[in-house]
Amino acid sequence: MRGKFISLEGGEGSGKTTAIQFIRQWLDDHNIPYVMTREPGGTPLAEEIRQLILSPRSERVNDITELLLVFAARAQHLAEKIQPALAHGTWVISDRFLDSSYVYQGKARGGDIVMLDQLSQWVVGDNKPDATLLLDVAVELGQERVVQRQHQDRLDKESLAFHQKVRDGFLERAQADPERVRVVDASQSLDSVKQQIEEQLVKLNNAWTGNS
Amino acid sequence: MRGKFISLEGGEGSGKTTAIQFIRQWLDDHNIPYVMTREPGGTPLAEEIRQLILSPRSERVNDITELLLVFAARAQHLAEKIQPALAHGTWVISDRFLDSSYVYQGKARGGDIVMLDQLSQWVVGDNKPDATLLLDVAVELGQERVVQRQHQDRLDKESLAFHQKVRDGFLERAQADPERVRVVDASQSLDSVKQQIEEQLVKLNNAWTGNS
Repeated sequence: MRGKFISLEGGEGSGKTTAIQFIRQWLDDHNIPYVMTREPGGTPLAEEIRQLILSPRSERVNDITELLLVFAARAQHLAEKIQPALAHGTWVISDRFLDSSYVYQGKARGGDIVMLDQLSQWVVGDNKPDATLLLDVAVELGQERVVQRQHQDRLDKESLAFHQKVRDGFLERAQADPERVRVVDASQSLDSVKQQIEEQLVKLNNAWTGNS
Repeated sequence: MRGKFISLEGGEGSGKTTAIQFIRQWLDDHNIPYVMTREPGGTPLAEEIRQLILSPRSERVNDITELLLVFAARAQHLAEKIQPALAHGTWVISDRFLDSSYVYQGKARGGDIVMLDQLSQWVVGDNKPDATLLLDVAVELGQERVVQRQHQDRLDKESLAFHQKVRDGFLERAQADPERVRVVDASQSLDSVKQQIEEQLVKLNNAWTGNS
């Protein structure tokens, strides 16, 4: 039976790392085979592309160049890692996927949505995640968490405006495709967040085994 | 005054390297400022992308991944090197450009032409070369030259069929856009080839200075 494909999305301080640890534990407890992966990246070549994208460099990076690199890595990730795993009945959990491109390259940085749609159709097509868990938290709270973690002592306004666009962008993605993108209220207590995630995992697992 | 943008295209053994040396000499003799560049590559980031494309690897490379990498490098090359140089009145001579994508990824390896056209429109748009010099030679003659150069002692048939597709692909590009793609008969003597190239350079230079 085909595995389930889950992507995790969310802005800074939304608790993605903790959520991934919890999902991993839950899948272990239920004896479900899985691979954890991430974007950009996920295969040796896609990780090399990730390095090109994320490395600081003096050369200005053209917006279209970055967008094409992100989708080049995604095509490789889907063809060489995600789809073979799903076909073998393995669940795939990806830290970020397609929605991040729409939110970061599109919404937050003004990228061309027509181009995003066309690349998405070519590269992803019908191979979207079965569920995308969107960890949603108010920008101020998310940033407070990041500040505590990084021992920083101030937030600049430009950064807040950027993070607000990111949050708005993710919520728009959820509104446009509520069946796939499931909003987890990440401002709640850790226990509540885990409970919300578990509900989604149970739903997916029941759908998979035909018990829903 | 804006510089001229020339690309060189041709299959194996067509004499591209010799042609580039001759063009360089001609531009020096005419005191025309120029940059020599190549694809994939041309800027530090684009050269890093070239390495990703050309490095031997055990991982199978998805066709769409390769195509997007080639156009990611091209977008960077155009934005950060070619267009600024042309704007400063510098001529740009590129060893391979857009036509190679159509011929190698498209014609020879069966890539999606609709995708190539869309990427070409996004990335290159109206910034095509002022002239593309296509060094055309019969596959057998081109391969004989390569064999002599590399001290190989045989040609395999698969290779010949591939190189025939490459030659046909370039000639189709010339037929479709004869104003830009100028066929140089590279089966002729070195002197004749140089003369054909010089004619094209003189034409471009006269068009530039308004003497044509």
